[in-house]
Amino acid sequence: MARVSQEHLDARRRQILDGAARCFARNGFHATSMQDILRESGLSAGAVYRYFRSKEELIEAIADEAFTGIRAAFTEAARTTPPPTPDVLLGRVLRKLLVDEVPGGDARSFARLVVQVWTETLRNEMLAATLAQGYDGMRLAWAELVHAYRAAGQMESDVDADHIARTLIATAQGFIAQQALFGDVRPDILEDGLRALMSMQDPKIS
Amino acid sequence: MARVSQEHLDARRRQILDGAARCFARNGFHATSMQDILRESGLSAGAVYRYFRSKEELIEAIADEAFTGIRAAFTEAARTTPPPTPDVLLGRVLRKLLVDEVPGGDARSFARLVVQVWTETLRNEMLAATLAQGYDGMRLAWAELVHAYRAAGQMESDVDADHIARTLIATAQGFIAQQALFGDVRPDILEDGLRALMSMQDPKIS
Repeated sequence: MARVSQEHLDARRRQILDGAARCFARNGFHATSMQDILRESGLSAGAVYRYFRSKEELIEAIADEAFTGIRAAFTEAARTTPPPTPDVLLGRVLRKLLVDEVPGGDARSFARLVVQVWTETLRNEMLAATLAQGYDGMRLAWAELVHAYRAAGQMESDVDADHIARTLIATAQGFIAQQALFGDVRPDILEDGLRALMSMQDPKIS
Repeated sequence: MARVSQEHLDARRRQILDGAARCFARNGFHATSMQDILRESGLSAGAVYRYFRSKEELIEAIADEAFTGIRAAFTEAARTTPPPTPDVLLGRVLRKLLVDEVPGGDARSFARLVVQVWTETLRNEMLAATLAQGYDGMRLAWAELVHAYRAAGQMESDVDADHIARTLIATAQGFIAQQALFGDVRPDILEDGLRALMSMQDPKIS
């Protein structure tokens, strides 16, 4: 076998993942076959199977990449002083996922794919494990941010940081569900909503 | 045909809906047949089909009932002065749906059913319309609440009330997704998370 550079391997992997994301977004997870993905990526079966053995492995890789990207944004934000507030941060994540860098290219199709993946985890343990790991990572990243908010005097409540993390993740998940169901989500809706919540008085504190 | 009281008709309808909810929760929407529902409710085909012609009609009726219940709780809350804050209200809704009055009896199965229904709307227009109508009702109910918060001096931000409504609905949807995926949601997680957000400073105001 000819020696190939890491760069070449990475570009090939990218080409496959992008093709798969387009197929999944267009036709859904179930109606997409490995044949569709080969055709879309313009590569031979041998080339593709060297990287991914099944569409389950492909969807896991796509999910994993999305989680890694979101988590990196949070980790970077937690290092800023003062850290950007949740409305700004979640607005950035939604803007990236649903506007600027939509996996597969179309925001509603992508959101529908995410909801399909949620359903799919109910009978696919590997995919369930990938998602559980991705969420655990996000929970840790948000918990770090909560500590940073407290250190900067931005958050008065001392409730469990993981509960705050899960609430913020839930808000993002819910907007993905709304985008899948109704298709009219814009990042500023979430930004406005979180800002308005932040303008309320916590009855346990005041 | 013998004359029957409205009470009898309502009780019969209730019996069918409860049986269907248990079947859907246990086996999912797709794997449940009308035969399963007949067996579970202990009624004849003639008795059931008089009320519901298909499992699609049954899942629509179950969704409709859930939306009506949630909306009534919000409408009632908006009439209280001062109205209960979002952490209290959404905590109540989750406590009802996932703890006290779980449709079908098991919280994780119910949450999985909701996510399945979200996926199902992508190819079932009637169900999509039922959900869209249900959400529109909840958006209006939350918008009323936002006006009540402002009237009571509890919310300083003047952003679009519908954006706040959609953010709060998203948070509840996200917790249903987390319950479906990981099964460890408790109402106090959401209550804590929302309270902590309310303890933050809105950077556009302060």
